[in-house]
Amino acid sequence: MKLYTYFRSSAAYRVRIALNLKGLDYEAVPVHLLRNGGEQLAEAYRAVNPSALLPALDDDGALLSQSLAIIEYLDETRPLAPLLPADALGRARVRALAQTVACDIHPLANLRVLKYLKGPLGLSEEVKLQWVVHWVGEGMAMLEAHLARDPHTGRFCHGDTPGLADCCLVPQVFNAQRFDIDMAAYPTVMRIHANCAALPAFVQAHPAQQPDAE
Amino acid sequence: MKLYTYFRSSAAYRVRIALNLKGLDYEAVPVHLLRNGGEQLAEAYRAVNPSALLPALDDDGALLSQSLAIIEYLDETRPLAPLLPADALGRARVRALAQTVACDIHPLANLRVLKYLKGPLGLSEEVKLQWVVHWVGEGMAMLEAHLARDPHTGRFCHGDTPGLADCCLVPQVFNAQRFDIDMAAYPTVMRIHANCAALPAFVQAHPAQQPDAE
Repeated sequence: MKLYTYFRSSAAYRVRIALNLKGLDYEAVPVHLLRNGGEQLAEAYRAVNPSALLPALDDDGALLSQSLAIIEYLDETRPLAPLLPADALGRARVRALAQTVACDIHPLANLRVLKYLKGPLGLSEEVKLQWVVHWVGEGMAMLEAHLARDPHTGRFCHGDTPGLADCCLVPQVFNAQRFDIDMAAYPTVMRIHANCAALPAFVQAHPAQQPDAE
Repeated sequence: MKLYTYFRSSAAYRVRIALNLKGLDYEAVPVHLLRNGGEQLAEAYRAVNPSALLPALDDDGALLSQSLAIIEYLDETRPLAPLLPADALGRARVRALAQTVACDIHPLANLRVLKYLKGPLGLSEEVKLQWVVHWVGEGMAMLEAHLARDPHTGRFCHGDTPGLADCCLVPQVFNAQRFDIDMAAYPTVMRIHANCAALPAFVQAHPAQQPDAE
């Protein structure tokens, strides 16, 4: 398997965690989001993923995109160390938590959006940071509210085994911390983050541990 | 089953289509996104969905949120008229198409974001529309590129049966048309949209057909 990745891409980071949790070997193919005007925009990468976004997975010639779809595919084709619960309601809960990150937080604070705020909209660095703090804060508050009220929350997002939702939570916290966002208001999120951060699968997926880290 | 919905909510529209495709009866509970300062923000609705976003599903007391998670749950618990393919690669493809809408297009053009552009950022109506045209255009180009290049695309997003990806495509086209976005550059998207629009399940889920339509 080949994973098209960038060390700081939050979505690629999710898939790296999932691959590690399942103990799957893969070759990392770095795609630099800033160099050469953005290597993800080049024809070579568009042939892999026409969305020109990371990550993409090449599984023996089959090309997959979208981090959550990739993780579900890995879970279905390599069922050892499942990343989703066995019951339909549990799966719905874990998917909803993952989608809270992937649909309600990350799309508003990723590189292409922040570049648009400063470029075409001509907003200042200060207003850009205000934007990030606002949307990441809103999203983290949602995640905290879901996790704090539900007895299914355990050491991890769902029970005591890390899964799909944790694969999303940890990179989003990393991203928030890069922007110096105060995480004190999200104690359940941060408790789960600390439990994840202690596991080798999460440590080895961390941006700083990647071959393309700067 | 009770679906918390708003006639023009793109994410609620997805679930209405899925419920109709499966022939499932449900009670629509309207939550008005603009009235009373946004009914989704009230405590009564936050008890249903702490994210204060639509839709939510109440299945005999079990509360579910996030449209894609809800649709997968419906598909798992009511397997008749499946909305996902039987093979893992097909499922990954359909989920990736759905997530292209749900993660890469819709989050940037939904109500809360457009309100923030005009409110806190103080941008003009014109710049707001420029923002919508840019991001919806980028996203539709991604969707078109994925659909046009892949032999799995049929009368619908995946083969000749409507499914999860079509549940996402149609509301996003509706949303784009509300903003007068020129769709001529996305012929595959529009061909599939036309095939969907001919089916009763899609007709009956249309915003104009909802009890809370204005």
